Amino acid sequence: MYGSSVLTAVGLRSEGSNYVMSNGGGVMSSTTHLLDFLEEPIPGVGTYDDFHTIDWVREKCKDRERHRKINAKKKESAWEFTKSLYDAWSGWLVVTLTGLASGALAGLIDIAADWLNDIKEGVCLNAMWFNHEQCCWGSNETTFAERDKCPQWKSWAGLILGQEEGPGSYIMNYFMYIYWALSFAFLAVLLVKVFAPYACGSGIPEIKTILSGFIIRGYLGKWTLLIKTVTLVLAVASGLSLGKEGPLVHVACCCGNIFSYLFPKYSKNEAKKREVLSAASAAGVSVAFGAPIGGVLFSLEEVSYYFPLKTLWRSFFAALVAAFVLRSINPFGNSRLVLFYVEYHTPWYLFELIPFILLGVFGGLWGAFFIKANIAWCRRRKSTRFGKYPILEVIFVAAITAVVAFPNPYTRQNTSELIKELFTDCGPLESSQLCQYRSQMNGSKAFVDASPNKPAGPGVYAAIWQLCLALIFKIIMTIFTFGLKVPAGLFIPSMAIGAIAGRIVGIAVEQLAYYHHDWLVFREWCEVGTDCITPGLYAMVGAAACLGGVTRMTVSLVVIVFELTGGLEYIVPLMAAVMTSKWVGDAFGREGIYESHIRLNGYPFLDAKEEFTHTTLAREVMRPRRSDPPLAVLTQDDLTVEELQGIINETSYNGFPVIVSKESQRLVGFALRRDITIAIENARRKQEGILLTSRVYFTQHAPTLPADSPRPLKLRSILDMSPFTVTDHTPMEIVVDIFRKLGLRQCLVTHNGRLLGIITKKDILRHMAQMANQDPDNIMFN
Amino acid sequence: MYGSSVLTAVGLRSEGSNYVMSNGGGVMSSTTHLLDFLEEPIPGVGTYDDFHTIDWVREKCKDRERHRKINAKKKESAWEFTKSLYDAWSGWLVVTLTGLASGALAGLIDIAADWLNDIKEGVCLNAMWFNHEQCCWGSNETTFAERDKCPQWKSWAGLILGQEEGPGSYIMNYFMYIYWALSFAFLAVLLVKVFAPYACGSGIPEIKTILSGFIIRGYLGKWTLLIKTVTLVLAVASGLSLGKEGPLVHVACCCGNIFSYLFPKYSKNEAKKREVLSAASAAGVSVAFGAPIGGVLFSLEEVSYYFPLKTLWRSFFAALVAAFVLRSINPFGNSRLVLFYVEYHTPWYLFELIPFILLGVFGGLWGAFFIKANIAWCRRRKSTRFGKYPILEVIFVAAITAVVAFPNPYTRQNTSELIKELFTDCGPLESSQLCQYRSQMNGSKAFVDASPNKPAGPGVYAAIWQLCLALIFKIIMTIFTFGLKVPAGLFIPSMAIGAIAGRIVGIAVEQLAYYHHDWLVFREWCEVGTDCITPGLYAMVGAAACLGGVTRMTVSLVVIVFELTGGLEYIVPLMAAVMTSKWVGDAFGREGIYESHIRLNGYPFLDAKEEFTHTTLAREVMRPRRSDPPLAVLTQDDLTVEELQGIINETSYNGFPVIVSKESQRLVGFALRRDITIAIENARRKQEGILLTSRVYFTQHAPTLPADSPRPLKLRSILDMSPFTVTDHTPMEIVVDIFRKLGLRQCLVTHNGRLLGIITKKDILRHMAQMANQDPDNIMFN
Repeated sequence: MYGSSVLTAVGLRSEGSNYVMSNGGGVMSSTTHLLDFLEEPIPGVGTYDDFHTIDWVREKCKDRERHRKINAKKKESAWEFTKSLYDAWSGWLVVTLTGLASGALAGLIDIAADWLNDIKEGVCLNAMWFNHEQCCWGSNETTFAERDKCPQWKSWAGLILGQEEGPGSYIMNYFMYIYWALSFAFLAVLLVKVFAPYACGSGIPEIKTILSGFIIRGYLGKWTLLIKTVTLVLAVASGLSLGKEGPLVHVACCCGNIFSYLFPKYSKNEAKKREVLSAASAAGVSVAFGAPIGGVLFSLEEVSYYFPLKTLWRSFFAALVAAFVLRSINPFGNSRLVLFYVEYHTPWYLFELIPFILLGVFGGLWGAFFIKANIAWCRRRKSTRFGKYPILEVIFVAAITAVVAFPNPYTRQNTSELIKELFTDCGPLESSQLCQYRSQMNGSKAFVDASPNKPAGPGVYAAIWQLCLALIFKIIMTIFTFGLKVPAGLFIPSMAIGAIAGRIVGIAVEQLAYYHHDWLVFREWCEVGTDCITPGLYAMVGAAACLGGVTRMTVSLVVIVFELTGGLEYIVPLMAAVMTSKWVGDAFGREGIYESHIRLNGYPFLDAKEEFTHTTLAREVMRPRRSDPPLAVLTQDDLTVEELQGIINETSYNGFPVIVSKESQRLVGFALRRDITIAIENARRKQEGILLTSRVYFTQHAPTLPADSPRPLKLRSILDMSPFTVTDHTPMEIVVDIFRKLGLRQCLVTHNGRLLGIITKKDILRHMAQMANQDPDNIMFN
Repeated sequence: MYGSSVLTAVGLRSEGSNYVMSNGGGVMSSTTHLLDFLEEPIPGVGTYDDFHTIDWVREKCKDRERHRKINAKKKESAWEFTKSLYDAWSGWLVVTLTGLASGALAGLIDIAADWLNDIKEGVCLNAMWFNHEQCCWGSNETTFAERDKCPQWKSWAGLILGQEEGPGSYIMNYFMYIYWALSFAFLAVLLVKVFAPYACGSGIPEIKTILSGFIIRGYLGKWTLLIKTVTLVLAVASGLSLGKEGPLVHVACCCGNIFSYLFPKYSKNEAKKREVLSAASAAGVSVAFGAPIGGVLFSLEEVSYYFPLKTLWRSFFAALVAAFVLRSINPFGNSRLVLFYVEYHTPWYLFELIPFILLGVFGGLWGAFFIKANIAWCRRRKSTRFGKYPILEVIFVAAITAVVAFPNPYTRQNTSELIKELFTDCGPLESSQLCQYRSQMNGSKAFVDASPNKPAGPGVYAAIWQLCLALIFKIIMTIFTFGLKVPAGLFIPSMAIGAIAGRIVGIAVEQLAYYHHDWLVFREWCEVGTDCITPGLYAMVGAAACLGGVTRMTVSLVVIVFELTGGLEYIVPLMAAVMTSKWVGDAFGREGIYESHIRLNGYPFLDAKEEFTHTTLAREVMRPRRSDPPLAVLTQDDLTVEELQGIINETSYNGFPVIVSKESQRLVGFALRRDITIAIENARRKQEGILLTSRVYFTQHAPTLPADSPRPLKLRSILDMSPFTVTDHTPMEIVVDIFRKLGLRQCLVTHNGRLLGIITKKDILRHMAQMANQDPDNIMFN
């Protein structure tokens, strides 16, 4: 039906000669175009429906237009000049506000979660609102072993039964622990379910999708912010195997979104708003880990889609502001910005790269396994009746977690504290069970060389067993926890698993070096009595490897962990482990957990990292396919309002190509369904004489009509006269590249100048799913 | 002439029906397309001429094609599998090699420059090859004030005249200093002039242009590398006001380019090669400042054009490898990676932001002034006879520099040492003149609080005068030095100017705080006898501000300086100063020094940072203009070889659109001039029966010809069947965006499906120059 050669009709002639004129006189045509632009600005045209993709190109043009208007006006008066200044500064203002709010909220959440977490075990007698540590600050007990036992702090057994020791009080504490854990979990899921369903999960998959140009109304709204903040504290305190770091990114993005409403530059432009959100996500990671540079790189590498250099600079600023606010709040009481601040005193040796790479392999395997298992479980939850009872599920998981976690000290304690303990090197002042080595030297030497390698004592062996159990427990519970209807981050559980594995490997290598110091590798580097293995470093490397395996982050992960230690010294082990873990993980499937969840939810997300490697051409992907009805097109000047409405009602496409005539099939432009509907409604309400039989025209001048015909309707102002086109021979890899880099929603396909079909983002995603032998109907939105 | 409506001729009909077939059967058409691809791979097609722009899209397609071939083959045999593994790993290998080589070369250059620099003043008696510091390491003199005076080290006066003191020996030393400086400068410029003209300058403007897709053969070759390495050492040692940091980026890029020739994946693909170069430039900055993360961000922010995430990761790796190699070489003898390692012990106070911001203003003003003055001078050099004598010019500038520099200790010493001294805080062990404060406390207190604010002594006042003179000297000389025909970096001179200004301001504020400690701002923060102002920090902030003013770097600059100090503490002052300096600088002209030099040289560089803010449409920029002859086009099947050669010889365009027929003007594809020439030559040499009267066709099937006509020539394989098109109504801001993001060379303009004109990168750059009221003929290359 396309491409049959006939005489091209009236439309072509009139319009062709019109063109020669305007080509001749560039000035004239530019003014008419401008007039078109100012003519009838129909309210609602240029906005988007919920769960639709934005048109980046159009948004950026809108912003430049706005900018030009302000620039043109600014010389008119002092007031206009002030307004232009305000406009120029609003970018910095909004990121400053976002940084301030994110930092403050993060501090608040840290303090509240700490306090609520300690409530599970006991209460501070003289000041309810103190957590365990703060409660014991004023205490006279100064020995380090006893520092967290002080008379002011009463365990629940001590408070209720009046005794701190004995099986009865253990059971009492156990019971109270489970009671509080269940209460917190119940409250959290209830609040989420009733007030803000979007507050659940980590939010990063959705934020990635939103940043790539998708609209999810309310996902970053004030209710989500409020409920997420509150329930995050509850979820963390409930002892579930989850962290607060991922959700902090969501919280920061909510702040960014809310503040962007103060500035029309950002609130009225979806593309500009996403710049603020990129900066906000950098601020979120910055406060989550106390790593501003890592946060910026996280935003760049992991979440952002459109990241111009101006945004880089503002993200950096937002991340810094947030970090400084958090440091002034000082939630950890050590005036450190960093969650797990560690200092190691010994260098690493080349042979240690082997265990580090093994940890990388472990991290990659864990990541791949976790992604597969968690996605399988989440799919089950989505597809069976099972997902209908989110509250019961949360309570059930929380109950199991609490019951199993309490007896083991390493699972009972706060996960971040566990990670901190595992990262920390054994110094002479360290009282942890993990540091109970058998000392073989006299006192004086122990002070000179604080922590030489020593044979492990019974404490260490006990700790290793408990750590092994904790590892298994964490692995199982994390799979079932991520995806529950509570705010749940993955960073901390993943890091905990890696840190446990790493510490175990570290102690093993350490003992190997001690007992077999005559082996070649150890003889070269480790002298007896000197410190050559740092188990804490292994824990850190393991944590990075596991986090890398799950999220497939690379540079940002290394930089975040680098900012924790602050020394370039340990970057090489980290890189080795993270690289290995990424490669091992990628061998089982290239998607990280966030991309997998995006795909599970069917969001239209075109990943910039994934390469399109097939040889298909545009014509094989475009619609209409062979068996489809012909493409729904509009002709530029011979439809009536009724016919146009008919076409719109019969089809469900989001937009229609406008062509010169059915015969020539030459493309004029593209009109969006939403815009056409709004424009027709508006015209019928406001313009007189527009009837169902009125002719609709997209051309510059009205077509010549019989004298008795009703007033025609001009729709040129909603016509996109510069639609993107590719030829049918264009390889899909180029088309995908264009979609990604320009942020298109759709692209028209032509052959030798004639319109053939259309490719939308959804078509591409479906095609890619088909090529990867996945279900193409999984992509749900446009 | 375009758009006249007539019956569309044979071409359309045959081709139109052909299309319906291929649309019907996607499988068939895909195989024919593949056959086309494999048919006749003409040698030379797909390469580029010198001083031309590459086609990123085509290069990326070529690489994917290659990748697919390797992937398809790899299951065939173990050998193919090994080859595919080698191919997959070659990216990592090449960046590792680049990192190793850059680190090693940087170490070599550091050591050699140090030694040669000291030669100007004297010689080590027992070991010629030691520099001053190494010579005196074994010395018995242990007092700090005397540490650089040792019997082994003889000044030239000491060696020749036999006396170290007195006016005679001063004159002798002065003379020898000038002699060596002139010799080094002469040797440097001679080597550059004779062997490698591309080795001059900092190289960053050219590298930016090359990374954006321009071809300059030999710019990154082995000769340039060799000569640049040698002459860089000479130029630094000659005492000219230049640094080695910028040229180190060029050196690293040369390494990257040379190593990429070992791997066909990179040597045969200009786009892939640029990924290696991006990583190399990160390695260059990494070794220049000992700042790997800063280096990566520099590559991302300042030099790179196409920077996919994979490159980010590899750049990071290259930067780390280079940094570690440099550290193992340990050129500074302090096992520090960092050129100017500093540690400050006092925090900064909020009121200090005022002087920091003032330093930012100074930096911005200096940057704007420097750019204007330097560009004016360079333009003068280019346009007048003056530029014909580069050797004389270098000798002249070197002579003035040496004569003026020697008497002032701050200009005589190595610029990096000067910066280090200015950055360093006055501790109790510091012997510098800058630290000669009048001590007012007794000995015991001085040890407790090492460096309280004290009144300045005569040494400090003398130092300030000398610094002021040094500042004026550096400002003037740097303007005339940058642009000489020797390797010359800007980082160090800019930082020196900022550091001098900063230190002077710092001492001024310190003295203000000492003498006016009753002022409100000081009373709040500064108690008498405590240390509250750190002049060294001011020097660092000033250095960052001036460097920012000249280069307009932001994030990368802050991160580089952050990596020097290693503390998040001082990021806020740095950011405040760098931001102020950028804003102040931008107020006088948005271009940094590198962009200005790119424009001065007329390279076709489309800056990704600059926004296109005008409202022009594509049809106003495209060629042919109104008065131009019609667009040179090829028809798809009715030209003879002779006619085709005629069109090529009559015009100088780099490519020609191929259309269905002159009447319909419907676009089929685009063929490059170079490819057509090569293909015709190749055909006439290898295919029999191709005569001048042979018909040339770009269609799938040969046109029906009279029986006696010679064998037709099929050129479909060189036809780009997916040329980029935009409509004539497309705003230029979108066109510019497409060019930037996709890295196009040209784009065809259509109106309602008919070909109207063409827009090339050069057209866009000319249009932008016109809009900015600059000379559009300045853009010289395609």
